[in-house]
This record gives sequence, structure tokens and C-alpha cells, in this order.
Amino acid sequence: MKIGPQTHRASAISTSNEETIVVRGRDLCAQLIGRISFTDHVWLLVTGDLPNPAQRRVLDATLVAIAEHGLVPSVQASRMTLAAAPEALQGAVAAGILGCGSVILGAAESAGHLLQAVITRAGVSPSLEIAATDVVREYTTARRPVPGYGHPLHKSYDPRARRLLEVSREAGTDGKYAEAASAIEHVLPGITGKPLAMNVSGAIPAVLLDAGYPLLALKGVPILARTASLIAHLLEEQTRPIGFVLSHAGASAIDYDGER
Amino acid sequence: MKIGPQTHRASAISTSNEETIVVRGRDLCAQLIGRISFTDHVWLLVTGDLPNPAQRRVLDATLVAIAEHGLVPSVQASRMTLAAAPEALQGAVAAGILGCGSVILGAAESAGHLLQAVITRAGVSPSLEIAATDVVREYTTARRPVPGYGHPLHKSYDPRARRLLEVSREAGTDGKYAEAASAIEHVLPGITGKPLAMNVSGAIPAVLLDAGYPLLALKGVPILARTASLIAHLLEEQTRPIGFVLSHAGASAIDYDGER
Amino acid sequence: MKIGPQTHRASAISTSNEETIVVRGRDLCAQLIGRISFTDHVWLLVTGDLPNPAQRRVLDATLVAIAEHGLVPSVQASRMTLAAAPEALQGAVAAGILGCGSVILGAAESAGHLLQAVITRAGVSPSLEIAATDVVREYTTARRPVPGYGHPLHKSYDPRARRLLEVSREAGTDGKYAEAASAIEHVLPGITGKPLAMNVSGAIPAVLLDAGYPLLALKGVPILARTASLIAHLLEEQTRPIGFVLSHAGASAIDYDGER
Amino acid sequence: MKIGPQTHRASAISTSNEETIVVRGRDLCAQLIGRISFTDHVWLLVTGDLPNPAQRRVLDATLVAIAEHGLVPSVQASRMTLAAAPEALQGAVAAGILGCGSVILGAAESAGHLLQAVITRAGVSPSLEIAATDVVREYTTARRPVPGYGHPLHKSYDPRARRLLEVSREAGTDGKYAEAASAIEHVLPGITGKPLAMNVSGAIPAVLLDAGYPLLALKGVPILARTASLIAHLLEEQTRPIGFVLSHAGASAIDYDGER
Repeated sequence: MKIGPQTHRASAISTSNEETIVVRGRDLCAQLIGRISFTDHVWLLVTGDLPNPAQRRVLDATLVAIAEHGLVPSVQASRMTLAAAPEALQGAVAAGILGCGSVILGAAESAGHLLQAVITRAGVSPSLEIAATDVVREYTTARRPVPGYGHPLHKSYDPRARRLLEVSREAGTDGKYAEAASAIEHVLPGITGKPLAMNVSGAIPAVLLDAGYPLLALKGVPILARTASLIAHLLEEQTRPIGFVLSHAGASAIDYDGER
Repeated sequence: MKIGPQTHRASAISTSNEETIVVRGRDLCAQLIGRISFTDHVWLLVTGDLPNPAQRRVLDATLVAIAEHGLVPSVQASRMTLAAAPEALQGAVAAGILGCGSVILGAAESAGHLLQAVITRAGVSPSLEIAATDVVREYTTARRPVPGYGHPLHKSYDPRARRLLEVSREAGTDGKYAEAASAIEHVLPGITGKPLAMNVSGAIPAVLLDAGYPLLALKGVPILARTASLIAHLLEEQTRPIGFVLSHAGASAIDYDGER
Repeated sequence: MKIGPQTHRASAISTSNEETIVVRGRDLCAQLIGRISFTDHVWLLVTGDLPNPAQRRVLDATLVAIAEHGLVPSVQASRMTLAAAPEALQGAVAAGILGCGSVILGAAESAGHLLQAVITRAGVSPSLEIAATDVVREYTTARRPVPGYGHPLHKSYDPRARRLLEVSREAGTDGKYAEAASAIEHVLPGITGKPLAMNVSGAIPAVLLDAGYPLLALKGVPILARTASLIAHLLEEQTRPIGFVLSHAGASAIDYDGER
Repeated sequence: MKIGPQTHRASAISTSNEETIVVRGRDLCAQLIGRISFTDHVWLLVTGDLPNPAQRRVLDATLVAIAEHGLVPSVQASRMTLAAAPEALQGAVAAGILGCGSVILGAAESAGHLLQAVITRAGVSPSLEIAATDVVREYTTARRPVPGYGHPLHKSYDPRARRLLEVSREAGTDGKYAEAASAIEHVLPGITGKPLAMNVSGAIPAVLLDAGYPLLALKGVPILARTASLIAHLLEEQTRPIGFVLSHAGASAIDYDGER
């Protein structure tokens, strides 16, 4: 059974024969292995071109920024999964990645769409600030959360967001997306009645889109970064297990209120 | 209900308060973001220390080498999953990672255990070659596959394996694991009756273990690298979908031979 | 760090002590095991009450109807995953379930929301048909697919949908949701210009909602049913493997059109 | 690239054309939907034949027995995943299934292999008890856990195991596997020095193998049963969320003992 129109029957990422592997038009062994960094390779895989030094520095900064933040839900799900299924490290990593969703790590992508909407609106608005106000009002009117702002722990400001904007300025890639992100931060308190500082998921699209990284691949950044963190946690779980401590503590925090 | 002894109640990876996030003893924002590469960060997360330049170069080389090799099964599973469930990129990435198992990408870890066994045996053997022969014979006697050797496409040699060993020599980290890997390659044809060249999953543990990367975290390397490749394929799938072309071709290749 | 308000700290599904396990207010061992069917148990777990015979029959019918339809994408992803990672059956099942998304098996839930919208609209419309027309027009105007109608193979009608509606009438549970589903099928050709017959994902919410099954748990029905099918396919994969045949056929159907 | 020999190019589970879907040789719509229970269908999918009433009753009993046991690790991982990624119910189910591994729910399959080993040994042993002793000694000598015995909560006996054996006797399917399971329970204290009662994962293979269910599909039973439970928990999570309560409690139970 054919599902959908199937008009595309090609892929432009890689081809190979017995002697040679070509990735994005480069000979993998002759031109890439040992010559470029993994971050260069990520950029190449995603965009088809190698990054310039500023682009590489910004992508490195975002991957370092979002990789690790302690025993967050996705890390706990991953460690519990390894404790229950130690034969499959890949399953524990997958369980952790499944928690990179719209509420937690996926906010980087939704924030990217928000920034894009503000910039598009600014083209027909008297000012960036008015465009930001209009778009944020549409979100709050539709009871949609404003992605990329506010954090349960870093309430007054998210130090990672500040540092990422700084790196972007140092690298000279800062531009309209960072301006849009700051404009939103500026107008938010007046609209929502509470200060909501830009968080790391707001800063990541700001600095990456300014550096030329594609919007549709934004969600891959926290997923890739978190994978690195999961591997570290799963190595620790193999040597100093806490997976069942976590689940015992979780279960103990919940009462049963059903029929007896 | 408490499962297991629960003697460990600690983690040494990260801690944070409202102003500061500490990762492996470093201030994430002041010392890491914008100052180190993602590959440095991976090494830091996994081992607790930053790599030296040679270690970083070897880890970069392995991540670049194993990331992408066209429409392999894990990539196809991932693209089909996104075609069926476009609302959850993380689910499509997870589906791809679940195919990093013992037969395909997980061979890097099993090959690491093989190399370790040969080196341990060499301590009580007349020569490395004899140690390699003995260990490989134990594998074949037990009908276990010898992980890290032979490839369905790169039959005479895997160009990625060659290049990785070269990078390791260039970086000056080459040592006993690479020697063990070569010894196995040397004795294999005499034992199995067919030439089985070292593949990328044999070379990765050789160069990483020589560089000081921990054995138990080996499986994380192909998983992390493949995640980057999956993100590129899923970006392509969003813009030039082939997921249902793949499944249509797959189904067409299989006959029904059950009752009618 | 506390994420969200955390006002709920209770679960009403199960509690236990050393001698007794209580599920939804019943003693699992004394009242349920050996006394009720698995389908009864599913209904009990989801709703808190045991089904009457008509409800059980309808739930059985939907689970049987949606479980298996050959080498669909989720089955292929699952079988490829087992071929690559035979050590983890649970990983292969998970890979298959990840393909139960909005485009393929998840349509049962979105169709449930569509039926609900038509019924709600009918309360303020001159007729059910006008309500169906209005709601479908809103979908097509917003370029949203109309979930539950049309099938790539069963073009003139989906025999499973017909049979499910028949079972619902036999069981005496048929009601307004089935009427709404038929009203949509009736008005669709006039709006879209092409005949789109109700498919199994349109019939499942119709008969289940009429039987009193909760809307928010609809998506669980195809997931549970498909899990049964995946287990059968994975047993076959262990004994007569085709996972790599599928991936070889898939890769062969795609050209490389990138740089060389 | 072709991986493996690819000698099999067929599947015997299902075929279809525009009008008819055939599952295991039956017309799905004419013979199965509305006529058989989901449990019948599971047996048919897995074995190719419909079960007799005794077989159906035993399979129903095992599925009911293993589906739900409160906030176990897999349920917590699943609920945390939905809290973080509410857009993808299938991802939360998959995260829960990934925790059906060798340590927790997968024990049913390993216990099946244990029972099979005892029965095979009994053919060349003076008695079943001696066969059980020999096989269990081999496990403990190799420091392998003896799967299917002992439980962290149900220490003196697992009420589900008792009830399953009782149902098997009521159904008249009890036989050599149940005898082997009881023989192991009898000899275990003398070998390990502690009483280890048969748990639900020991009783499931005993009663299912006696009823004619295939050994290689045993692991599917807890996975399928747990999927039903996950769907109930995820419905509760949508209406009374506790996912982030669980993760907060888990994180609070763990100290940071790394560098500062």
C-alpha cells in the first residue's frame, strides 16, 4: 500500500561504495575524520556546509549550555530505565530523549517560531517592541505559554541565557533574533504581570538563528546535547546506581486516593 | 517498595542554585560555555576532566567517523517514524537510537571488551599474537561473532578504520589497544578461513581506549554520533519526505506465505 | 527544582502491601485474576469500573480490528530495530509504538475530537448534517486533514469500519457518535470533491465513545492493539528474520542527489 | 548494502487487498472482529491458531496479573515523559515499555528459559528435584540471578503467583512447567540460604508454557499487559498530573558529592 504521494525519492546526505564514503559532498575519510570537530560535522550534516569559526563557536556554546542540569525528569527516566533494563543502554538513552518534549527541552524550537513571528511582524509594525507586544498578546490570549521565558529555579535571570547572548556578541553573529528575544523579555512583564526572564531555551534560538542555523533543526540541538549528558549519567548509573532510589522516593511522595 | 540495596544516594555530575550551575566542578557559565567545544564537554561529562588536545582530536575523529553512513536501518526506522508521527521529533530520534544495538552500532562496545580480553590475556601469554589467537578461538568456539571485524560493504578494508588508526598515530595516543586490534585482524583469517578486516567499530575502541576514554562509556560514542546524523535526516524528512517510500519499498520486497 | 504547581499528589489506580494488591478498588488476586478477561481489565484500569458485556464486546472488536495490517511502517521500524538490537525486545516494541502518531494510528484520537466537535455543534445547528458540514469546512479551510476518512488501500470503503459499526449495532451501544461519523462521511464528497470513506480510525472513536469509553484514552486503543501485533511480528523476526531485507529494499528505492 | 544472508523474504502474519484483510488465514472482518476477544486475537497473532477456552483463560489471567502494580519505575518514567512531552502519548508509552527489561518485567522470559533448562535436565536426572538443584547451582555459581523468585515487597509469597498456579489447575492446563517451577522454589532455600518465593514472573512462564504458549513470545506478555496499565496512568496524568512531583521527590533524595 502506498501512503502519500511519494514524489521525492532522493536523499542528499550521504552515498558510498566499497572504497569511499561521501558525506555532504566531502570524502569522509580524506577530508573530514581527523580534520574537523564533531561540532563542525553537526553543522555540515544539518546544513550541507562547514561552519565558519564564529558559527562553530556559537553552536558549541549552545550545546555546552543545554547538555546538563542535574537530575531533571529526562535523566531520571533514563536512569530508572537502565536500572530495569541494563542490557540495553540505547533503550535508556531513548527513554531520556523521549522527555525532550514541548514542555521541557523542546521549548528551544517553539521559541524559535516565536522569534520568527516577531521578526515577521516587525516588518509591518512601527517598532520591534510593538511587534513583540502584539505577538506575545496573541499567545497569552490563546492561552499558549510563551516559550523561552521563565524558569522554575533561575527566577531573576537564567545565567546560561546571559552567557549565550554574550558569546554571540563576542563571536560577532548577534543580530535581529537576539534583538527580538530581548524585546520580548522587555514587554513580557507588562503583559503577564510578572517578570519572566529569558531562559536558555529562549537564548538558544536567538543566537543560533542569528548565526545562520536552520529553524527546523533547532529541536535537534537540545536533543543532541542531552544525549551527551545521558551517556554520562548512564555511565554513573552503571557504577553507582541510583535508579531505584529515585523511583522509591517518587512513589513515596504520592498518596493512594482510590477505592480500597 | 524498595528494589535493591540502595547504598548509593549521590551523583557527582552536576549541582545548581538560582545563580550558578556547576558541572563536574566547573561553573558552567563562567568556565565552560563559549570557552570549550562540545567534544571537550562530552569528555568532561563522561570522565570528570577536560581532555588534552590529543584526546579531544581522537574523540572528534571517532564521532565524525561513525555519525553517518546513508540510509542504514536506524535512519530508515527514524524517518518512517517521523512520517507517521511528525508531532514528535524526539520520538523519531529515539526510534533511530533504539537500533544502536549489539548487531549494528553497539559493536564498538563489544569490540572494546574483546580488546581488553586480548590485552589481559597477553599478560600471561608468550606473545600478543598468541593471546589474540586464543581469545578469538574462544569466541568462535562459543559461536560468538567477533565484534569489530568484517563489513557487508567495505569488504577488503573499512576506510574509516584505517583513517582512525592514522589519526591516533598523528595524535600520539596510539598504544596497546591499537596493537591488540591489529593483532586480531592479523590472526582472524587463519582461524575463520576468511579475511575479515577491522571495521569502524573495531577501530573506535582501539583509538579511544588508547586515549584514555572509559570502556563502559564506549557505547555512548556511536549513539551520540548517530543522534547528529538522525537530526540531519529528520530535517531532510521534514522538507523532502521519503519515509513512506521506504516503507512501501520494504513491504513490496516481502511475500506473504501464510494461510489464505 | 520544582516544575509546575504540584497540587496533585495522589493516584487512584493501585495500592498494595505485602499480602494484597488492590487495583481500582478490587483485590487483584481474589477478584480479578482468573475471573475477568484482559479486555475487562483494560476497561477497569482506564475507567475505574468493569464494562458491561456490550461495552466489552465493542472494546474487543476495536482492539481486534486495529491490531494488524501487514508490514506497515511501525512494524517495519520495529523489525529493523530487533535485527539491529536483538538483545532488547522491549526496544523493538518501543520503536514500533513510536510510529503510532498523528498521521497513522493516532488518527483515532483526532477523529474522536472531530466527532465531539460535530456533536457539540449540532446542539446549536438546525441539523446534524449542517453541523457536520460546518465543522468539516473549518477543517478544510484551516488546511487540517479530516481524520478518520480515506485510506490509501481501502478506497471505496474500509471493511473494518463497516464491521465495527455493525458490531456496535449488534451490541446495542450505537448512538450519536456513530451518527455523527456517518454524517461526516455523507457530507465529505460535496466539500472535498472526492469520496472519502470512513476508515477504521474514524469508526473506532464512533463505537467506543458511544459505548462510554473516555475520549482522552482513545489513543491508547490503537497503541495497545498494535503492541500485540508487534509481539507477533517480533516472534517471527526471531525465527524468520526480514529486518535487513526491508532496509536493503528501502535504501535501494532512494537515489542520492547530493554533491559528489 | 546488504546486511546478512537475507534468505527469508516472507511473512506469514497478514495480507490484504482493497476489499479483504487476512490475518493468520482468517478474514479479519468476517471471522474475527466482533466474534473473538482481544486475548483470542493475541494468541492467534502469536501462534497462528485460536486458543481453546482453557488457553484463553490462562493467557487472560497472566495479562491481568502483571498489568498493574502501582508507581513502579516504568510507570514513573512514563508519567514524567508525558509531563515533559504531552504532545506525544506514544512517546510516554514507549518510555514506559523501555523499562520492561531483564531486571524487572523481562524476568518472565528468563524464568521461562530456566524452567526449560530444568525440564531438559530432568530427562537425564534421577529426579526433577535433582535437576532443579543442579540447574540452580549452575546459576548461582555463575553469579547469575535466579529469575522468577523473590520480591522486594511480597517476601513470604507473591499472591499473584499462587493465584496463577491455581487458575492453571482450574483450567486443567497445569503440567511439567508448573512442577519445575515448584521444584525450584523447593530447593532454592537450601542452595541460597534464604527463602525466595516464586514471584509473578516465575508463575507466568510456568502456566503459559504448560498451556502451549511459545517460549520466545513470553516477554511480550508483560510488555502487552504493562501497556494497558501505562495507558490508564497516562489518562490519569492528563487529568491529575504528578509527573513533576515524582521527579522533584526523586531529585531531592539524591545528594551531590562531586567537586564544587
